[in-house]
Amino acid sequence: MSDFKKDNTGYHLKHLFIGSEGTLGVVTKVAILCPPRSESVHLAFVGLNSFESVLQTFKNAKRYLGEILSSCEMIDQVSLQATVENMNLKSPIDTYPFYMMIETSGSNAEHDMEKLNNFLQLAMDKGDVIDGTFTGEPSKIQEMWKLREIIAPALAKDGHLYTYDISLPLRSFYDIVKVMEQRVGHMAKRVCGFGHLGDLNLHLNITTEAYSKEMYKALEPFVFECTSQLKGSVSAEHGMGFLKPQYLKLSKSSEAIEMMHDIKRLVDPNGILNPYKVLRS
Amino acid sequence: MSDFKKDNTGYHLKHLFIGSEGTLGVVTKVAILCPPRSESVHLAFVGLNSFESVLQTFKNAKRYLGEILSSCEMIDQVSLQATVENMNLKSPIDTYPFYMMIETSGSNAEHDMEKLNNFLQLAMDKGDVIDGTFTGEPSKIQEMWKLREIIAPALAKDGHLYTYDISLPLRSFYDIVKVMEQRVGHMAKRVCGFGHLGDLNLHLNITTEAYSKEMYKALEPFVFECTSQLKGSVSAEHGMGFLKPQYLKLSKSSEAIEMMHDIKRLVDPNGILNPYKVLRS
Repeated sequence: MSDFKKDNTGYHLKHLFIGSEGTLGVVTKVAILCPPRSESVHLAFVGLNSFESVLQTFKNAKRYLGEILSSCEMIDQVSLQATVENMNLKSPIDTYPFYMMIETSGSNAEHDMEKLNNFLQLAMDKGDVIDGTFTGEPSKIQEMWKLREIIAPALAKDGHLYTYDISLPLRSFYDIVKVMEQRVGHMAKRVCGFGHLGDLNLHLNITTEAYSKEMYKALEPFVFECTSQLKGSVSAEHGMGFLKPQYLKLSKSSEAIEMMHDIKRLVDPNGILNPYKVLRS
Repeated sequence: MSDFKKDNTGYHLKHLFIGSEGTLGVVTKVAILCPPRSESVHLAFVGLNSFESVLQTFKNAKRYLGEILSSCEMIDQVSLQATVENMNLKSPIDTYPFYMMIETSGSNAEHDMEKLNNFLQLAMDKGDVIDGTFTGEPSKIQEMWKLREIIAPALAKDGHLYTYDISLPLRSFYDIVKVMEQRVGHMAKRVCGFGHLGDLNLHLNITTEAYSKEMYKALEPFVFECTSQLKGSVSAEHGMGFLKPQYLKLSKSSEAIEMMHDIKRLVDPNGILNPYKVLRS
C-alpha cells in the first residue's frame, strides 16, 4: 500500500504477487501511481516488404523517436487480411507483407510531428517503409487501433483459433511463424503473427474451420519446444493459467520451479488459492 | 538470465533477489538490457525562495518537460553551503533558501532546448524560480553534478555526520528537516536535506563536530518514527543493512515481516547468507 518509487525496507513482496495469477493471494486494496496523460499522441500505419525492414524500422524508431515512442506493433499480411475479410474493415493502406503501427506520446505536438516526419522520411528514403499514413486526430487514432485490436476476434471467425502468446528474441521474432507455416500450413486456413514488437511479444495464430485433434497434436507441445529452442518465453503477457503449467520447464530451470513450489507451499499450505493454475503439483 | 520485457512463466523470482542485500543468494551471472544513450542532455541549476515554489516547479517540470525530464533534485541552502565552505567549490548562482537541479535527456537537442527554455521562462514569470543557469555542455554538466554529489563528503568534513535515507510523500517531503532543526538544531552544526525529489527520496543530514551519544539518542529512533508517522519509508535506496532491521516494523506490517522471515528460512535454512542484515532473527 505504498506508491513510492523507492522503498528498500525488506524483500519486495509486491513483485511476488504480481503475475502469480491469484495462486499466492487475493488483492483487496491497491495503490496506483499514474503518469500524467500525454498532451500529444500520434499514430503511424506503415507498409513494409520484409521482416528485415521491420527490424530496421524498429531500430530507427527507437533512435529517432526516442523518448516519445510509446508503441511499436507488427502485423503480418495474413493477420490484417483476416480483419478485412471477416470484419469488413478497410486497411488504411495497400497490401504489403508486413505492417507496423508506431505510436508517439509527448508533451509538444509540434516537436512530435517533426520527429515523426523526419523518422518516416528517413524510413522511406532507405526503402524500409514503402507506404504509410499518420494522424494525430483522436477519432482516427482509435479507428486505426481498432484494426489491430480486432485481429484476434477476426481470426476466431475462421472457425477454430489456436493462439499462442510468446516472447522471442528480436532476431528470431518472426521465424516461428515461418516454421509453423511450413509445418501445418497445408492443413490450416491461416498461419499468422502479430504483436508487440517493442516488447518482443508475439501473438502466433493458426486457424482451421473446426477444431481438429490432428492439428492440436501438430501444434503442441511443438510450439512451446520451438519457442524454448529459440530462447523465448512460453508465456509473455497472459500467464500460465490452467493450460500451460506443464510447459513451465521449457522456460524456467528446475531449481527455479522448485523454489516456486516451495513459495506456494509456504504461502498457501492448504492449496486453496486458485488451484491447478501456474504450478502443477 | 533473460532480458525479456514480458515473461509470465511462474513467479517473478528476480524481484525477490533485487533489494534482498545478499540475504537470499549470491549473483553469479546477470543479463542487462540497456536503453540507448540520449543524444542530447541539458542541466538547469535554479534558485528558489520557498519549498512551496520547489513543489510547484517540480509539478511544472513534469508537465512541460514531460518525456525528457530525467532528473529532478532538490538541495537546501545549508547543504550547498557545506560544499562551498568545506570543499571550496563555487555555486553557479547566488544564495537562495532552495536550489533545484533539473536534467533533461532527449533525442533532439533543438526540441529539448526549446522545452527547457519555455519551462524556465514560465517558472520565472510565475515567480517560482528566482535565478538560474542551464547548459548542454558535457564538461559543465559534470561540474554542476559534482556540486550535488560532493554534498555528503562535504558534510562529513564538519566532524561527525548523521545521515538518513528516507522516502516521504511529496506534500511533507521537507517537513522532517524543519522538525529536526527544531529538535536538535541547538546542538548541531548543520541540519539539512537534499535528494531525489522526483523519486520522493530525501537525504536528511545532521552534523556535529564530534560524535555525541546525546545527539544520537535525540535522533534515533525519533527520525524513523517521524518518517513512519509521515507515511514514509525508513529506507529509500540504501537498504536496511546492519543498522536498520529493528526499524523495519515502522515501514512494513507484521504480516509482511513474518512472510519475509519465512522466505529467508526457506531459501537459507542455515542462515549463512549475509547474516544479521535486513531481518533480525
